Amino acid sequence: TKTIAIVADLHGNVLGMGLSSGSNYHTVGLENAINAIKASSEQAISNANVSTIKSACFGLAGAGRISDHKILFPELENLTIANKILLKHDAYIALAGATICQPGVIIIAGTGSMAFGMNHLGKEERSNGWGYLLGDEGSAYYIGRKALSYACKAFDGRGKKTALLEAIIDHFALDDFNQIVKKVYSEKTSAQKIANLATIVSQQANQGDEIALDIMNDSAFELALSVKSVIKKLDMDNERVLVAIAGSVFKSGEILLKNFRQYINSDYPLAEIIYPSFKPVIGALLIIYNEIGIKLDKYILDNLRKGDALVEKGYNV
Amino acid sequence: TKTIAIVADLHGNVLGMGLSSGSNYHTVGLENAINAIKASSEQAISNANVSTIKSACFGLAGAGRISDHKILFPELENLTIANKILLKHDAYIALAGATICQPGVIIIAGTGSMAFGMNHLGKEERSNGWGYLLGDEGSAYYIGRKALSYACKAFDGRGKKTALLEAIIDHFALDDFNQIVKKVYSEKTSAQKIANLATIVSQQANQGDEIALDIMNDSAFELALSVKSVIKKLDMDNERVLVAIAGSVFKSGEILLKNFRQYINSDYPLAEIIYPSFKPVIGALLIIYNEIGIKLDKYILDNLRKGDALVEKGYNV
Repeated sequence: TKTIAIVADLHGNVLGMGLSSGSNYHTVGLENAINAIKASSEQAISNANVSTIKSACFGLAGAGRISDHKILFPELENLTIANKILLKHDAYIALAGATICQPGVIIIAGTGSMAFGMNHLGKEERSNGWGYLLGDEGSAYYIGRKALSYACKAFDGRGKKTALLEAIIDHFALDDFNQIVKKVYSEKTSAQKIANLATIVSQQANQGDEIALDIMNDSAFELALSVKSVIKKLDMDNERVLVAIAGSVFKSGEILLKNFRQYINSDYPLAEIIYPSFKPVIGALLIIYNEIGIKLDKYILDNLRKGDALVEKGYNV
Repeated sequence: TKTIAIVADLHGNVLGMGLSSGSNYHTVGLENAINAIKASSEQAISNANVSTIKSACFGLAGAGRISDHKILFPELENLTIANKILLKHDAYIALAGATICQPGVIIIAGTGSMAFGMNHLGKEERSNGWGYLLGDEGSAYYIGRKALSYACKAFDGRGKKTALLEAIIDHFALDDFNQIVKKVYSEKTSAQKIANLATIVSQQANQGDEIALDIMNDSAFELALSVKSVIKKLDMDNERVLVAIAGSVFKSGEILLKNFRQYINSDYPLAEIIYPSFKPVIGALLIIYNEIGIKLDKYILDNLRKGDALVEKGYNV
C-alpha cells in the first residue's frame, strides 16, 4: 500500500527518504506501480541532495516470480535511477533487513500473512500468503473473520457466549447486531475492515475471553505452521535458524507470541525467535552492501539504526 | 436468484406457472424485485388462463424483517394481483412446504446456509445465514473455501496431503496451482465459484480422502449446530420435532447426512429428519389453504405432488 525509498552512503548514513503510493503492479497496474517507484526514488534522491546513485535495490510486492521479473526489470532500468540495479521481492528485503542478511525465516502477519526463508545455499522457500479468500491463515483478516463468525454464533445461540459480540457492536457503533450485515457487505474495503477487528480480539483475549483466547491461539498455531513448513523445505531442521516476526499481529500482546514460540520450539528447539533488526527498506540497502562487500562494523550498524528510526518516522507521516 | 410463481385451484391442481429473475430487493433493488414478481405472477396467471386470483402468498428472500415488510407490502398491493395478499419470507414458505405447515425446523444448505423454525405457538426462530463473509457455516461456500485453504496448505507443505489439490487443479484446468490466485481474485462471482467446489469435496470424501472427509464432517457438525440452536430457542427440546433438510449440500452423499443425523439425534433423539414434502412455492399455496381452512385430504395431496413435479421441471428449464 505504500512505496518507501531511501538514499544512503557507504557508511550506513541515510541521506534522504521518499514515500509514495503502492507499487504492486498486480493490484495497481504496471504504469501506476512504476510511477510510484519513480516518485519515491526521485523524492529520496532530491531529499539526499546527491547527483548520482551507484546501486539501487528494489524490493517490490508482487515481484516474486520470474514472469514478474521479466516485466518489471526493463521498466526499472528505463528509470535510469542508478548505474546498477537489483530487483528482489518484498519478502526478500524484509528477511535481509530482519536478519541482517543471515539465513533464516521471516513471518509477516499483518492484514495478510506469509512466511519466507532462505538457507545458507541461497535456496528460497515460502509458505502461506495466498490472500484473504484462499489462505492468510493467522493474519489479522483471519482473526477478524473468526471473531465475526463467533459473534454471529453467539448471537444465534449456536456457540459459546463471548465478549466479542458486544465489542464488535461497540466497534461498529451498531444499534442492533443485525446491522453488521450491511456494514460488512455493502461498504467497500471490507477485507481491511475485517482485519481491523484483530485489535479487539487481542484486547478481549487479554481480558480473558475464552473465544478470543482460542482465536489468538489458533492464529499462533497457523503462523507457526507456516514457519515450520519453510524450515523443513529449507532443510534447516537441525540448525540454529533465525525466525523473525513482523507485522501488526505480533504486536497484539504476550499471549499470541508465547503460544507461537511454543509451537515453533516444540518442533525446532534450536530456532531463535527474533524481532527484525531493520525495516525492509534497510534490508534492500544491506543487500547492496553485501553485494559490494562492505563489512558491517559497529559504526555502520549504529548509523543504520539511526536510519531505521528515520524510516519509522517516515512511515508514520 | 430466481422467482417462481404458481396459480392453483382449491383442489391442489397447479394450473399455471411463471419464472423470472431474482426478487431479493436488498440485492437487485426494489424496482427490479417488484418487476420480477410481477413478471412471474403474470406469466403464471396467463399460463393458467384464469381471470381473477382470490389469494396470493408471496414468500420472498430478504423479507424477514418488519422493516422489509413495510417496504414490500404496499408495493405488492399495488400490483393488484389478488383480492387478498399475504407476505412471508422465503424460509417461512420453505418450512411450510417441507413440513406441510406442521411445526418444525428447516435447514437450507446451498451456496449459503440457514436454519429456520416455528413451534406450535407460531413462534419463529432462525440461526446462521449471515452470508459468506460472516457465517453460512456448513454451506457449499464454506466447504469450497475450506477445500481451497487445505489445498494451499498441502501445496505449501503446511498441511496434510490431500487429493483435493489435484482435483482443484483439474476443476479450474490450471497449468500450475499458483494460477488459482488469479482464478479466485480477479474473476467475478468468486463466491459462487468457490461454492461450486463443494461437489469436488464430496466426491473426494466418497473416495476416502481424509481432508475431504474432515470438511464434510465439519459441515455436518455446523449444519446440525444451526438446527439445534433453533430447536432450543423454540423450546422444542422434548418433542418429536421435524427437521427438514434442503439444498445442494444434502445431496452430496451419505457421509454428510449420516454425520448430520448423529449430531442431531445425540442431543435430540426425538427429532425426525425428513426430506421436504413440497417445494417452497407449494408451501406458499399451503399457507393460503391453511388460512382459509382447506383440509388436506389424500386427493388434494396427490394433486399437489403432481404440481410439485411440474415445478421441478420448471426449475430445470
